[in-house]
Amino acid sequence: MSISIVDEAIERKARVHQDSLTKPRGALGRLEDVACWIAARQGKVLPDALVPHISVFAGDHGVTDEGVSAYPSVVTGEMVKNFSRGGAAINVLAKECGASITIVNVGVLSDISDVDGIVQANVRAGTANLLTEAAMSETECSAAIEVGRKQAREAIAAGANLLISGDMGIGNTTASACLICALTGAEPESIVGGGTGVDGAGRKRKVEVVKQALARVGNLSADQTLRELGGLEIAAMAGFYLQAAEGGVPVVIDGFISSAAALAARVIEPEVTAWMLASHISHETGHALALNALGITALIDFEMRLGEGSGAALVVPLLNSAIALHNNMATFESAGVTDKDG
Amino acid sequence: MSISIVDEAIERKARVHQDSLTKPRGALGRLEDVACWIAARQGKVLPDALVPHISVFAGDHGVTDEGVSAYPSVVTGEMVKNFSRGGAAINVLAKECGASITIVNVGVLSDISDVDGIVQANVRAGTANLLTEAAMSETECSAAIEVGRKQAREAIAAGANLLISGDMGIGNTTASACLICALTGAEPESIVGGGTGVDGAGRKRKVEVVKQALARVGNLSADQTLRELGGLEIAAMAGFYLQAAEGGVPVVIDGFISSAAALAARVIEPEVTAWMLASHISHETGHALALNALGITALIDFEMRLGEGSGAALVVPLLNSAIALHNNMATFESAGVTDKDG
Repeated sequence: MSISIVDEAIERKARVHQDSLTKPRGALGRLEDVACWIAARQGKVLPDALVPHISVFAGDHGVTDEGVSAYPSVVTGEMVKNFSRGGAAINVLAKECGASITIVNVGVLSDISDVDGIVQANVRAGTANLLTEAAMSETECSAAIEVGRKQAREAIAAGANLLISGDMGIGNTTASACLICALTGAEPESIVGGGTGVDGAGRKRKVEVVKQALARVGNLSADQTLRELGGLEIAAMAGFYLQAAEGGVPVVIDGFISSAAALAARVIEPEVTAWMLASHISHETGHALALNALGITALIDFEMRLGEGSGAALVVPLLNSAIALHNNMATFESAGVTDKDG
Repeated sequence: MSISIVDEAIERKARVHQDSLTKPRGALGRLEDVACWIAARQGKVLPDALVPHISVFAGDHGVTDEGVSAYPSVVTGEMVKNFSRGGAAINVLAKECGASITIVNVGVLSDISDVDGIVQANVRAGTANLLTEAAMSETECSAAIEVGRKQAREAIAAGANLLISGDMGIGNTTASACLICALTGAEPESIVGGGTGVDGAGRKRKVEVVKQALARVGNLSADQTLRELGGLEIAAMAGFYLQAAEGGVPVVIDGFISSAAALAARVIEPEVTAWMLASHISHETGHALALNALGITALIDFEMRLGEGSGAALVVPLLNSAIALHNNMATFESAGVTDKDG
């Protein structure tokens, strides 16, 4: 399947409609752009209210052996249990924005097969250590991508018209930094951040690990990058984004991990970015550069650095407000208001 | 009455609670600060969900005689009719964020006494031309302030725990620019913007008008500034903010006009700013400087420049998300998640 075509004629019609509403033209700023962007992707001048779905993909990372994270790998499985009981940030935000949510074990290291209420789709128990070998085999990487695709396919079939994916995986800022460097040519110093909270010395070690991992793989082709340097949850997120764009449903990109997955998805299908809206600039170093490489502009900067899809879920009410304004405001004509340019 | 005291002990307790939640400390960025800020002002470690109220104050400006606006004064009254029928941006946003709303005629020029569903509290039919004389008499200015106070008082009595005020008044970016310059010492060139849409030559004329008005009043005392250079709706907004802070209810500041009113309120009661949360940076030139002078930091920058309280209403769902996260996330202990610093 290929990426759906965005309806630019609808976008132009939506813009004409925006300009008829009772406000100075452009006075609603980015809300006007967002409404027209969604209109074009729904193929409706007056778009439907959003029906958001969130899938959180969890996986572990062999590279944690190198001491790159402030938390141990066991936390990934513990947080999956927390998600399953509704106690994490993304659970609260999903409820606030009216999103359905699935939690997907695509590669958690600890045995969480007894955790109820989650999707069990474990491809392998954490990746290999990307510093010394490929994180995944080609087969494993494809399987993880398909796990993500399946979630998007099912959400769309259930009626979702906006898709968000989140991540949980101790060590995944290291894998994401590797991917972002490999796919944009950026230097590790400008990309590697504190993750869940490593300090100066820890960050320095992390930069070294990323440098050495990049040196290990050398000039590999872009389509090998994801399996060599990525993660199972990152591959699933890439598959999720590809499936959404093929199904003609927009996605909201979250933070650092999400953007790394988006860059990996773009290697597979360059047009996938036409379906991506950026939510926030993460406090994680290098995220702004990743968004810039994707060619998308964040809506907010709240200095968040949590992952889970939290930044993306947070902006959903802003998107719904943009649609409500677009659909429900009176026009200069209907309200009998004098129009400067009318 | 005097400004209520913020409970700093509650703020510290709220911060301790934030740090027990299942996320790396600080990973929710500004959402954590917002939740603790609201907790301290409600005097509750776990604050109540927001019950927002919006009052939109409408008034006209004699200075429009100088050709400072892209729209004629008649639009103020026309827009009040539009508000009364639910067709304006602020009506849509009020509905989206679950806010009650009142529309207040505090000084509209055209006769709108037959418009139903609004608060008729017209102090005078538009201000005098501030270029050549005081915009209002002392009595009129006090009456307009009291109109705003009454709205806040009634909203608090009805159960609101978050207050927003918006403005409608052709010409009011000129009056606000005068106030901001007079109260911060800023130069008109760095403050005057396009308002509803004046172009290069129009903006140049507007700068001249502001300069001459400032020259007319000379070194007047701060407490005379509002009546000399302000507007009826701006005075009402200042009163609204003062009453909210006296009643111990936080306010969300909107854009350029709202910030000018906030600066005017601070002249009357310096402590009033402790109850102010900034919502957005307006696209109107000089707004960032006004917020800086108030010592408050905007949450979002959507390049909006509409007024009506639109930017403030837009962020209410973000504030509610901050509270929901604060109140409803599991703690490391309750969820059995390994804590780095615990």
